Amino acid sequence: MPFVRIDLRQGKSAQYRKTIGEIVYSAMRDVIDVPDGDKFQVITEHPAEGLNIAPSYLGNDYGADIILIQITLNVGRSTQKKQAFYKRIADDPHTQLQVRRQDVVINLVEVAKENWSFGSGIAQYVT
Amino acid sequence: MPFVRIDLRQGKSAQYRKTIGEIVYSAMRDVIDVPDGDKFQVITEHPAEGLNIAPSYLGNDYGADIILIQITLNVGRSTQKKQAFYKRIADDPHTQLQVRRQDVVINLVEVAKENWSFGSGIAQYVT
Amino acid sequence: MPFVRIDLRQGKSAQYRKTIGEIVYSAMRDVIDVPDGDKFQVITEHPAEGLNIAPSYLGNDYGADIILIQITLNVGRSTQKKQAFYKRIADDPHTQLQVRRQDVVINLVEVAKENWSFGSGIAQYVT
Repeated sequence: MPFVRIDLRQGKSAQYRKTIGEIVYSAMRDVIDVPDGDKFQVITEHPAEGLNIAPSYLGNDYGADIILIQITLNVGRSTQKKQAFYKRIADDPHTQLQVRRQDVVINLVEVAKENWSFGSGIAQYVT
Repeated sequence: MPFVRIDLRQGKSAQYRKTIGEIVYSAMRDVIDVPDGDKFQVITEHPAEGLNIAPSYLGNDYGADIILIQITLNVGRSTQKKQAFYKRIADDPHTQLQVRRQDVVINLVEVAKENWSFGSGIAQYVT
Repeated sequence: MPFVRIDLRQGKSAQYRKTIGEIVYSAMRDVIDVPDGDKFQVITEHPAEGLNIAPSYLGNDYGADIILIQITLNVGRSTQKKQAFYKRIADDPHTQLQVRRQDVVINLVEVAKENWSFGSGIAQYVT
């Protein structure tokens, strides 16, 4: 059920962008109990002036590789799970793509389970 | 008051994209009591690698014509209304544009009525 | 903590778009108590058919310069603060860029404070 929007600077390869998406998906599968196949991601490149970001916030310095990840998902995960999820999404791009951990910014938007239709006009989570 | 984001693969005509938008608007008018003129839609095309979607989920198979529709709207519609709304938004693209019903994915994000300004710096829904 | 998405018609200069972003940031700083450095904005241009907007709603007439501003932020601001915020975001583009006030449309999406990571995989607002 998560709907993921990933926004980053243009100039990275399609493979790089795909890898970011797959990292987020793997983290959802492994850490916050998202089912297999529940992968709905929009990954958008932007010109430099399309991302207007402060140089730093709360001790994090942001560079040209900043990745903004906004995830809409069902309400109800614990703060502890969210924290583990953030850590994983910062760690894996660092390990796999040399992205600096401070360049990964994440925001969750929580919704009710009846707020989804995954196709065929049906609210699949309503039982 | 709904703010609609429609994301799809590039390559469709402007008319096709407009028709998708109008279908969503008509469904809002007819099924969930949205007033006349309340149409605020951003319709964005993406290259193939800009949509990272699983091949299938919950029995729906997704193809290149997948349409992701995310709608921010006021809280308070019943689950039954939402279900009727989903059905309509899957049925009409099928009838009018030969889109497979399973290729229509919908997500609602609900907000409070004071969270809107429709112009002129006024929160029009605050009374 | 606000995550800001600004959508507008293509054809404006990079400076114009930057100015819109800075106006929103200044309004957040001055009116709704957003800390220094808390600026995360995605500013996207769209072709004419990428914005599907009614000609008017609630007495506002929309033109080609319409600016759609969607802001995800922490829950808890008063309606009065939100109203002052909307006013400021409509007034400043008018003064600085000759944007008609009725062409500024704003939507807020509120989330919990544990729904953010501003880098390094940490939920900085969880204490």
